[in-house]
Amino acid sequence: MTRGDRLTEVVRERELSALVVTNLENVHYLSGYTGTNGVAVVGAEGQRDFFTDFRYLERAEVEVRDFERLRGKRDLLGDAAERLSAGRVGFEEEHMSVRSHRRFEGLVPEGVELVGVHGLVEGLREVKEEGELAIIRRAAALADDALAEALEGGLAGRTEREFAMALEDGFRARGAEPSFESIVASGPNGSLPHAEPGDTVIAEDVLVTVDYGAKIDGYCSDCTRTFATGEVGAEAREVYELVRAAQAAAGEAIRAGLGCKEADSIARAVIDDAGHAEHFGHGLGHGVGLEVHEGPRLTPAASEEETLVAGNVVTVEPGVYLPGRLGVRIEDLVVVTEDGSEVLSQLPKDLTVVGET
Amino acid sequence: MTRGDRLTEVVRERELSALVVTNLENVHYLSGYTGTNGVAVVGAEGQRDFFTDFRYLERAEVEVRDFERLRGKRDLLGDAAERLSAGRVGFEEEHMSVRSHRRFEGLVPEGVELVGVHGLVEGLREVKEEGELAIIRRAAALADDALAEALEGGLAGRTEREFAMALEDGFRARGAEPSFESIVASGPNGSLPHAEPGDTVIAEDVLVTVDYGAKIDGYCSDCTRTFATGEVGAEAREVYELVRAAQAAAGEAIRAGLGCKEADSIARAVIDDAGHAEHFGHGLGHGVGLEVHEGPRLTPAASEEETLVAGNVVTVEPGVYLPGRLGVRIEDLVVVTEDGSEVLSQLPKDLTVVGET
Repeated sequence: MTRGDRLTEVVRERELSALVVTNLENVHYLSGYTGTNGVAVVGAEGQRDFFTDFRYLERAEVEVRDFERLRGKRDLLGDAAERLSAGRVGFEEEHMSVRSHRRFEGLVPEGVELVGVHGLVEGLREVKEEGELAIIRRAAALADDALAEALEGGLAGRTEREFAMALEDGFRARGAEPSFESIVASGPNGSLPHAEPGDTVIAEDVLVTVDYGAKIDGYCSDCTRTFATGEVGAEAREVYELVRAAQAAAGEAIRAGLGCKEADSIARAVIDDAGHAEHFGHGLGHGVGLEVHEGPRLTPAASEEETLVAGNVVTVEPGVYLPGRLGVRIEDLVVVTEDGSEVLSQLPKDLTVVGET
Repeated sequence: MTRGDRLTEVVRERELSALVVTNLENVHYLSGYTGTNGVAVVGAEGQRDFFTDFRYLERAEVEVRDFERLRGKRDLLGDAAERLSAGRVGFEEEHMSVRSHRRFEGLVPEGVELVGVHGLVEGLREVKEEGELAIIRRAAALADDALAEALEGGLAGRTEREFAMALEDGFRARGAEPSFESIVASGPNGSLPHAEPGDTVIAEDVLVTVDYGAKIDGYCSDCTRTFATGEVGAEAREVYELVRAAQAAAGEAIRAGLGCKEADSIARAVIDDAGHAEHFGHGLGHGVGLEVHEGPRLTPAASEEETLVAGNVVTVEPGVYLPGRLGVRIEDLVVVTEDGSEVLSQLPKDLTVVGET
């Protein structure tokens, strides 16, 4: 069954006559198209239209499968509108602006009722096919390999930015791109979960959090390790072991059928019990695929109905952040399986002192 | 007058009580904030609120000026809604999804009428301040410098991708990032205006189009040159000189007061007269600033009222594309002045044979 076929089933379940897909990652997922102007229409009765403009026709010829390739004008909503027939037509309400929607309303034929829907293609994307898993495995291995190489040059004495550039050069040398702007946060900077690598020279005897991912063939990886540059002291070691225990507890529990909220709460309970509840201010993890943040979300805000299924690829990344002092985050990327998980992040999770020989 | 002050004037002209700014480039422009979750509210009576979540508070502390810095929840629309008072409140209808808008409608206090507007902050951004021009000049010079260096390694015999990587490494070595994915299109690939650099080995005796730009301190440059790798033949030379003449004609005409559509038509007439009307399938140019594509647009679709004003930064980039054979594009980045323009692209526009000594 193709991805288009699976979407057709969803379109029927929702009692739509068709779905207009405008989000480019979703268009990519369905059709194979990787350009920057494309729209897909998937009908309940087998309609599979793909539109792009003249600039991308030759690319579409190479990439797009299972869809009829149609040449549109620069604004593809008008072209899509012309191929719609009366009925309830879904559009992606999370990805269409108020302005585009108003224009689209004026373009669709009489008898078409536009219905805002969300998460339909994203729902399919949450469960990866074997081919997708193979790419993500490669991306994760490549990223770990590049990090190991960058670490050979040491941490202390380089600036955070220098280390991030060395790491990302390693991705590019291996044919990948960074899947997001790498985080290299040393010492007190580690207490900012989303610190940008700056001109801070990495000191001796501090913790350094490195959050990194590679992108190949459209798919992302995502991993975090926290390293030491020497003797970091009792508090840092204690926080490190706490995060490591929380990460291990959640990691061991991950399997098909586990609730997304429950996964989060397993790690959170470990951190809460140690008195650090207010120092873990983000969710446990998120799905990873064509986007580095996608579903499912492992957070306290997840609903009771959201459970992990085999083929989900999620991060497991608790952290503890002591403002102005230090931070620790440990993150694995894992594939959910029927009876557990496959961990894609290969680097050790013992506190590693970088630069020691 | 600060940017916030200028926006307040626009808000009053539109008879709004406030504008909620959600587009991140617009938030950046107004407040200085460069993170990935921020909302600004600018009121007709001087309200200047900036919201971000806990992850970016320390960054906001450093970056945000002229706005009151407020800590919001992860979803900032609710926080912005709480600070609104009754009246006509504008929102950016090009940048707010149908779904967010519906949610926002449910969050605003009674008496608030949400009014979709577009282009308000973008209109301010089209006219650059001296400080912005200084950064764009630096970005353009840096990009030209990196290209000149990359060309020292030659073109023929390297793959398009290798050349693109060498060029982008040069940006990074100079402290910049690419402002978009560089285009390196050789021989027949040159006929695709948006070709991605691929594994094609650049041949001898062909044309190679290189479209590149650097980004520093948030601002982009954009430039294109087409080079030869040897004796390219009469047709290629003829097309090159045609595009060069079209580029020169438009470039000489650029000044404050010139219509945006007229600018396009000056270059287009030169190409049409040579019988290549159908081979110039895109507009003459576009504004460049925080985004590599912004206003004003120099296209046949521009309205008669749209004219260039001093401080616009625009590209002037005609091209001729012969499908399956070759393509030529020559692009300068220019600052519009009262009596002409300042050309920021410094590389020569004579047909340069790369690799000849």
